[in-house]
Amino acid sequence: MKAVILRDLGGPEQYRIGDVDIPSLGEDEVLVRIRAAAFNRRDIFIRKGEYPGIRLPAIPGADGAGEIAAVGKGVKDLAIGDKVVINPALNWGNDERIYTKDFSIVGVPTNGTFAEYINVPRENVFPKPEHLSWEEAAALPLGGLTAYRALLTKGKVKKGEAVLIPGIGGGVATFLLQMAVALGTNVFVTSSSEEKIQKAISLGASGGVNYKEPNWEKQLRKWMPEGADLCIDSVGGDNFVKLLNIAKHGSRIVTFGATACPVPQLVMPKIFLKQIDVIGTTMGSPAEFQSMLSFYDKHKIKPVIDSVFSIEEIREAQLRIEKGVNFGKVVVIMPWHEL
Amino acid sequence: MKAVILRDLGGPEQYRIGDVDIPSLGEDEVLVRIRAAAFNRRDIFIRKGEYPGIRLPAIPGADGAGEIAAVGKGVKDLAIGDKVVINPALNWGNDERIYTKDFSIVGVPTNGTFAEYINVPRENVFPKPEHLSWEEAAALPLGGLTAYRALLTKGKVKKGEAVLIPGIGGGVATFLLQMAVALGTNVFVTSSSEEKIQKAISLGASGGVNYKEPNWEKQLRKWMPEGADLCIDSVGGDNFVKLLNIAKHGSRIVTFGATACPVPQLVMPKIFLKQIDVIGTTMGSPAEFQSMLSFYDKHKIKPVIDSVFSIEEIREAQLRIEKGVNFGKVVVIMPWHEL
Repeated sequence: MKAVILRDLGGPEQYRIGDVDIPSLGEDEVLVRIRAAAFNRRDIFIRKGEYPGIRLPAIPGADGAGEIAAVGKGVKDLAIGDKVVINPALNWGNDERIYTKDFSIVGVPTNGTFAEYINVPRENVFPKPEHLSWEEAAALPLGGLTAYRALLTKGKVKKGEAVLIPGIGGGVATFLLQMAVALGTNVFVTSSSEEKIQKAISLGASGGVNYKEPNWEKQLRKWMPEGADLCIDSVGGDNFVKLLNIAKHGSRIVTFGATACPVPQLVMPKIFLKQIDVIGTTMGSPAEFQSMLSFYDKHKIKPVIDSVFSIEEIREAQLRIEKGVNFGKVVVIMPWHEL
Repeated sequence: MKAVILRDLGGPEQYRIGDVDIPSLGEDEVLVRIRAAAFNRRDIFIRKGEYPGIRLPAIPGADGAGEIAAVGKGVKDLAIGDKVVINPALNWGNDERIYTKDFSIVGVPTNGTFAEYINVPRENVFPKPEHLSWEEAAALPLGGLTAYRALLTKGKVKKGEAVLIPGIGGGVATFLLQMAVALGTNVFVTSSSEEKIQKAISLGASGGVNYKEPNWEKQLRKWMPEGADLCIDSVGGDNFVKLLNIAKHGSRIVTFGATACPVPQLVMPKIFLKQIDVIGTTMGSPAEFQSMLSFYDKHKIKPVIDSVFSIEEIREAQLRIEKGVNFGKVVVIMPWHEL
């Protein structure tokens, strides 16, 4: 089968398209013929070697949707042709709070979704929501799951609350925005791009500030005089200290990433005097994956697609993520050709 | 009346005993004749000027117990001679999560407990637990309240869990230790003093390490192979980063202080990849104060008293806290004499 192969760590030129064997199928596994896949920032980290557990050569990609092409002996409830999305969280286990020691994410160290076929455990495929195209379905899994857990399970967001999402534009951030808007909260965003702020407002954000302008915190204060009830942060760095200022007393800051890591000086007294909960989260449980799909289905929300590339354009595709110019998900579609 | 008066910021010599008017009584207030009072680290911060809202001259002291000496017109359910402890959290309000804007702690900016009499709102006095002496009752309020909220409300501690209390010896830490032991958890402590570790073990701690020794984290790992379920920290600083290493995946770190603040480099990925909740807390609500008293009553626990001084020895008394040599509370007792 055709697949994107990462032979060595390095730049986008390391993505090559090659021929590999179709994966053999375990008893409780299914083979999915990928129709569309999507990029995550994680894929860039892996390509650069900034991720634990990398084994090369590897087929990258955590997000994908497609049709069942074969089922293992133990799988009785799926048939060839069934349309599915893949939950990229492997071996989460039964504890909602935390995954097991065998946990991994599709793409590293197991084979990923930038391929014609992928084998995954039966429990990791879910029916594709009918209102979504293949591109939209492929865009949803990792980001939607992360956002769902961050916003609902960990953030315990409530209608009418003021929610701050710093750094709007990335996949998870746009999922957070969509879900928070659907839940009737007042969402505020930050970005270095006026265009992204306008897009966020068109998606229902109540306001946005350019964090390259001076006094951006002041503007947020005007909109949220008592501060934010919930901040959901993937930036870290200096920004995190500012979030502690913007956060309301007794509020929550959920953190799922730190692109500007490390936080240079975390002033602990702000956390305890303001009685703030700083809540770490990553990925989500199978139950949360199902709830996230149901949420998108119930509210008939479609993931925000930044751009769609053919798989031959994979190097260009990933550049949009690496440069941070994307607003929403970058999707790659099949069928397969030589690069 | 006689009172300890802080006229200027500075060293312990700034504590003077002087004569001031007995406070006038508001309609919903009571006048308490103090029998015993206790020191908190907060009192040292105030004396040095390292605390917000200081107005001088001031009568310091947040902790106290004594007898009702007079009641305001609106107070119908207390009589002169009733034995009470003072809840030092003024104007918490009705929200369990956070106090109101009018919140303050007895001692700054209102008058404190190092005095013959103090006036406090009716709602801030509670019946003295009968099994406690005056010294013990005076030792309990601020530290017991802080510890109760940190361990139970915020930390949601459960029987059988591994609880880590860094820096054992301070008032709140010893309350945490007592309550966590009473709840059937396995408590581990850290200290720079072997003597304090031994005292903690005699109070029911399962083990303790000297953080001046190399590899102290390794020893904790041996006792808690999966890590700590709950850390309750008031140290901050470098130590906080180590706590993130010792914390179990999916665990909680409650923070109520930062004597070694600020945290130099908080590695955010540890918080989100390990899915840790960092939970800020300070003081507690009236309901928590009542629950704390009931807890000490139900389990018939007595606060750990480090030492008892007469009020004339107030300068020596506070030095035990300032030097960090105390294990448990430093109490000062009346009656009044000239210094």
